[in-house]
Amino acid sequence: MNRLFANLPTTVFEVMSSLARETGAINLGQGFPDDPGPEDVRRAAADAVLNGYNQYPSMMGIPELRSAIAAHYKHWQGVDLDASTEVMVTSGATEALAGAILGIVEPGDEVVLFEPMYDAYLPLVRLAGGVPKFVTLQPPHFRLTEEALANAFSHRTKAVVFNNPLNPTATVFSNEDLSLLAAFCRKFDAIAISDEVWEHVVFDGRKHQPVLGLEGMRERSVKIGSAGKIFSLTGWKVGFVCAAPHIMKVLAKSHQFLAFTTAPNLQAAVAYGLAKDDAYFEGMRKNFARSRDRFTDGLRTLGFDVIPSQGTYFVNIDIAPLGETDDVAFCRRLVMEHGVAAIPVSAFYAEGAVKSVVRFCFAKKDSTLDAGLERLAKAI
Amino acid sequence: MNRLFANLPTTVFEVMSSLARETGAINLGQGFPDDPGPEDVRRAAADAVLNGYNQYPSMMGIPELRSAIAAHYKHWQGVDLDASTEVMVTSGATEALAGAILGIVEPGDEVVLFEPMYDAYLPLVRLAGGVPKFVTLQPPHFRLTEEALANAFSHRTKAVVFNNPLNPTATVFSNEDLSLLAAFCRKFDAIAISDEVWEHVVFDGRKHQPVLGLEGMRERSVKIGSAGKIFSLTGWKVGFVCAAPHIMKVLAKSHQFLAFTTAPNLQAAVAYGLAKDDAYFEGMRKNFARSRDRFTDGLRTLGFDVIPSQGTYFVNIDIAPLGETDDVAFCRRLVMEHGVAAIPVSAFYAEGAVKSVVRFCFAKKDSTLDAGLERLAKAI
Ligand SMILES: CSCCC(=O)C(=O)O
Ligand SMILES: CSCCC(=O)C(=O)O
Repeated sequence: MNRLFANLPTTVFEVMSSLARETGAINLGQGFPDDPGPEDVRRAAADAVLNGYNQYPSMMGIPELRSAIAAHYKHWQGVDLDASTEVMVTSGATEALAGAILGIVEPGDEVVLFEPMYDAYLPLVRLAGGVPKFVTLQPPHFRLTEEALANAFSHRTKAVVFNNPLNPTATVFSNEDLSLLAAFCRKFDAIAISDEVWEHVVFDGRKHQPVLGLEGMRERSVKIGSAGKIFSLTGWKVGFVCAAPHIMKVLAKSHQFLAFTTAPNLQAAVAYGLAKDDAYFEGMRKNFARSRDRFTDGLRTLGFDVIPSQGTYFVNIDIAPLGETDDVAFCRRLVMEHGVAAIPVSAFYAEGAVKSVVRFCFAKKDSTLDAGLERLAKAI
Repeated sequence: MNRLFANLPTTVFEVMSSLARETGAINLGQGFPDDPGPEDVRRAAADAVLNGYNQYPSMMGIPELRSAIAAHYKHWQGVDLDASTEVMVTSGATEALAGAILGIVEPGDEVVLFEPMYDAYLPLVRLAGGVPKFVTLQPPHFRLTEEALANAFSHRTKAVVFNNPLNPTATVFSNEDLSLLAAFCRKFDAIAISDEVWEHVVFDGRKHQPVLGLEGMRERSVKIGSAGKIFSLTGWKVGFVCAAPHIMKVLAKSHQFLAFTTAPNLQAAVAYGLAKDDAYFEGMRKNFARSRDRFTDGLRTLGFDVIPSQGTYFVNIDIAPLGETDDVAFCRRLVMEHGVAAIPVSAFYAEGAVKSVVRFCFAKKDSTLDAGLERLAKAI
């Protein structure tokens, strides 16, 4: 057995969701909505399954979806992508991440990672034989600093794996921070593997800035997106990557051996969905913002110390003021005794973990949030 | 860029299917049927997309599908699998293969591979840092021999990647050969990664023998299956692995980082399909056998030298008697000049490739096969 895998823990998302399923707890852990997702998009998929194509599609994705992705970003972010050389469909953002890291990093290459970080990044870097260089972001603002980046980047840096909006902190990087990161990537000729799956879910008038739209970054970025997140259909596992042709050539090869293709019927429905107008996406953001506010207010009323959420489906609380020093133990108690699943943020660190922050997913129906709050009332 | 990927060619299946799409050729290359697949299974998927669950399912697969897989093999092959510890759903057999090879093989481990071999095996072994040990199977019977296995296996052998029925030769290994392989696995404590995606498609009264059903192999086998192949819905990319719990623990970890989950709506439909009775699967085999015979007879009538097909969607011809010495050039001519896509079997070799065999997929409507034959008539 490969010891790298044999010694890894099961992802905290699965652990908490399993516990929630077993105990009947309200699941505010793993990031998925509890509404069924847009009916017209699901109808488009059902129609494609019944009347459309169900055999191997083109390895890079169906042309309609690749074009729809390019058109979506052109309209929304003013980024010009060539659908036939710079866009590839993947089986979810997880496959996209695995393919990008395994396709780009060679044994001995250094890879810059920011903590807290999504829990798949580090094992994939290790699997590729990469040498992680950690930058620990400091609460409450989780900003990039020149000093921290200077300590992490070197001429051995092959890539940086970046997440904006940042899960789990629910913060959005400023344009100043992004420019700083881009300057380091240019200086050290590093590729930014930019996990932007939460780009549509930003609040209070914020606008997502894709890394590949920054000066000199077009030729050194891999943008990772997720239709599951965009349309709140997380089970569909339709993701995509955007990258310059010389990078895409290699990503196509790792995709060939990790997944090969993605269900064409679901792809067709995502292509349909991406053609929706601005009002749709604006409405989605408004809805999530409303849920965020409802849940945040509820937590505050109960006396929890809430760290404000700028984006993603998530909001965090600081449990230190409650005298709690172990987020894992706290979350275990929450799910076993109080019937609410949440995520201990220490799971997002490889070293020097903050152990006093707990993440909740607020992308739920009002009734779910209210029931969750009612149970949380007994935990404080 | 990772040179391992950067230097790999695009898979021959995609190359030929792209050429077929571009030129409007009849595609008898890549293995997929041209009928839409069972309507009731597609209807079950459409229903699940519209009315079922579209968020992250359990990482190991939905319980209904894991149970259905265990029940299917219990009924069909008399193999007892524990659905909750020995069965995992994957995003297609490609992901299953990648996860098994990356999960089991560590840098420096030897891995036995049989040529001709499916083109994903070797790059994945190399990505894992494994050292391939090739056994070249000899036409026309492609049998395992004691001598060849003795040359390939050693105490450094970690695994053997095995394919039965064998794509591209369309042969089925005898029970004698399988016992020989099992004896070597036991002797050298090697794991058999057994790609059995074609197990349902065997002809002339043959019955598939799973490797994990052989003496002492239950604790050292990974069986890989494909619902896409079982139900002729190749685009769905729903695969699975069966393995003893101590192996499955590691496969679950590689799955976690390569794909995480698979669309629950398609999983639900596969669970529905696997409950079909023997007559259904028997009927499917009869249909494919009929297509095989129709196409084989047609090729023979045209004067092609056909290598009989015992299983899979494929049948091969030997082009040496036509004075052809380059299968790639022959296939290129077939698709560009005669409008028929086929697969040059040399693509299935890493070294010492046979260059005189060409593979056709006969899993097509009669009208497609007949039109293909009509075009092939001009190529001979
Ligand atoms: C792939 S499961 C995790 C989903 C998610 O993004 C999260 O909960 O952080
Ligand atoms: C994953 S594409 C190849 C399909 C197939 O099994 C074949 O054509 O051999």
